[in-house]
Amino acid sequence: MIETLAWINAPCSLPNAAAAEAARQRQNQLTKPYGSLGRLEEMAIALAGMQNTATPSPDPIQVLQFLSDHGAVAEDISAFPQIVTLQMLRNMSNGGAPVTVMARALNVRIEITNVGTVSDAGELPNVRNERLGDGTGNIAREPAMNERQLIDGLNLGRAAVERALATGAKLLICGEMGIGSTTSATALACALLGESAESLVGPGTGLNATGVARKTRVIDAALALHAAPNTPPLELLRRLAGFDIVATVGAFLTAAQHGLPIIVDGFIMSSAALAAVQLQPQVREWMLFATASAEPGHQRMMTALNAKPYLNFGLRLGEATGALAVVPLLRLACELHQHTATFAEAGVSQE
Amino acid sequence: MIETLAWINAPCSLPNAAAAEAARQRQNQLTKPYGSLGRLEEMAIALAGMQNTATPSPDPIQVLQFLSDHGAVAEDISAFPQIVTLQMLRNMSNGGAPVTVMARALNVRIEITNVGTVSDAGELPNVRNERLGDGTGNIAREPAMNERQLIDGLNLGRAAVERALATGAKLLICGEMGIGSTTSATALACALLGESAESLVGPGTGLNATGVARKTRVIDAALALHAAPNTPPLELLRRLAGFDIVATVGAFLTAAQHGLPIIVDGFIMSSAALAAVQLQPQVREWMLFATASAEPGHQRMMTALNAKPYLNFGLRLGEATGALAVVPLLRLACELHQHTATFAEAGVSQE
Repeated sequence: MIETLAWINAPCSLPNAAAAEAARQRQNQLTKPYGSLGRLEEMAIALAGMQNTATPSPDPIQVLQFLSDHGAVAEDISAFPQIVTLQMLRNMSNGGAPVTVMARALNVRIEITNVGTVSDAGELPNVRNERLGDGTGNIAREPAMNERQLIDGLNLGRAAVERALATGAKLLICGEMGIGSTTSATALACALLGESAESLVGPGTGLNATGVARKTRVIDAALALHAAPNTPPLELLRRLAGFDIVATVGAFLTAAQHGLPIIVDGFIMSSAALAAVQLQPQVREWMLFATASAEPGHQRMMTALNAKPYLNFGLRLGEATGALAVVPLLRLACELHQHTATFAEAGVSQE
Repeated sequence: MIETLAWINAPCSLPNAAAAEAARQRQNQLTKPYGSLGRLEEMAIALAGMQNTATPSPDPIQVLQFLSDHGAVAEDISAFPQIVTLQMLRNMSNGGAPVTVMARALNVRIEITNVGTVSDAGELPNVRNERLGDGTGNIAREPAMNERQLIDGLNLGRAAVERALATGAKLLICGEMGIGSTTSATALACALLGESAESLVGPGTGLNATGVARKTRVIDAALALHAAPNTPPLELLRRLAGFDIVATVGAFLTAAQHGLPIIVDGFIMSSAALAAVQLQPQVREWMLFATASAEPGHQRMMTALNAKPYLNFGLRLGEATGALAVVPLLRLACELHQHTATFAEAGVSQE
């Protein structure tokens, strides 16, 4: 398998430390107390390093939205029926889903891809149909996918980023939607981190305590079946992930190889981030983290990624909505960086 | 004094509970798990109640930016020299200050008013000259202002809000700038809350530990001189506040009386919020809180106001920058509220 995915091991870029340092020095010359814009300063400095420029800007932004079904729903681990994945695909196609509303309001490009709903929705406006299968396998009993699907999924994410780069994208956001996705993401994250299900599991879209207990048993069963110590990350992806997560891992790796900054959305995208960073640690250098998910296990993932998300808004929808909420703050950070007068320009005395 | 300020006791409006409840019900019909957009849902529900509408929107937004000097700088309590207040007034006039950069980027109206720098800058473009005096008195030794200045300051804030309302403003942001302002704000907040200086004091724009210790002594001296138990809030304002804070209190009271929602900025504007709420508790119903300030005493004020700020970005600039950072999130919240499809509209199954 490794041979057909040689691109995965191609070296990642690194942000330009000199550009970041120049941005830091500029921030300290702007007419405000040193550091007083906190994370708005951090954002501009980080983007300046990633984009190797004195005038960082998040735009144009590309959102890649991957939808797929997760076989573990057979174990009754979601508050919603599986048909909702397909219904939400149609809702996104029509622009009525939260992610499409936000992308429109923010003037951000979005590409919606069906990477594997259980049944085929046929052709839908604004949707790419690249189904890798009729949903993943039930991870409590079988691997999520075969090697072909894993490879195709990673390549699919890679190709999507290459399309985005070809049209000038300067920042990447990935999102997902699919009933059962937190079960896949939790199982994958537990395996990557060597944690038990209990330490990361949560209510997802709204399970009650009984449901969470059932979900915990399902994930523990999946871990017992698939996650023996020292199983390589790619193999854990094949056995436990969703098609959405696999496509995202391919997208994140490709972004890091091309020096394209990433805003990582919430819980599920963070599991993809963990996998990508285990495959190549330098991928981490290209990631900004959007939100502290309401899903309780998210903090453990953020700690493992040494990440401090910008927002703590109790978000638990996924669909890239957390990452999109950060977009206007990044834009403001860049406007402030570029247009605030320096002490010298404004004739303002320093400390 | 009270007679000439009878308007302060005019009753406040209350948000429309039925409109807020209708917004909450709509949120629960939108195609996402119940509550999964967290504080973005809260924002839309709160604004719907305040604006008594099914289609809340923050726009048009009016920023009132008040600049003034604080006499306590004579006690060496700031990292910056006093002349910076006037220099920053010119910087705002020219559009080079952070608040003006943000207002422009966000397409938000801003009115900049000199409410009392120590020296007169004369006429400046985009600046109203309404100086109440040559800065406030040194609160460690004398009252900040006389009764006439207090009354004029409150009326000045009232008139500014009335102008904003006349031009259709639907949301109010107040900001301030002035060297020494955290000393005034801390002293006022300590007096209003019955706290010692030590429990609320912080580095402001960047004092070192020695500076913070000196600032603490100055505030304790001001409290000993001015803040005997049971001193009424208006008298505490006169003795301890800055002209910027007094104008803001007038603005907040007027906004609440007219049912105009307010985004409260950081540390200094929170001291004005505390004073306004002590004058009329219902003012609180019109307030959204923007940011957890990096200034350590801010949390104590937020607790007293039963407030949970939206952002925790390490901001400590003031100038309304925290409140402005929240504006695009409020806009997104309202876009999501209005344009996300309902389960029925999209044919999506519910839990």
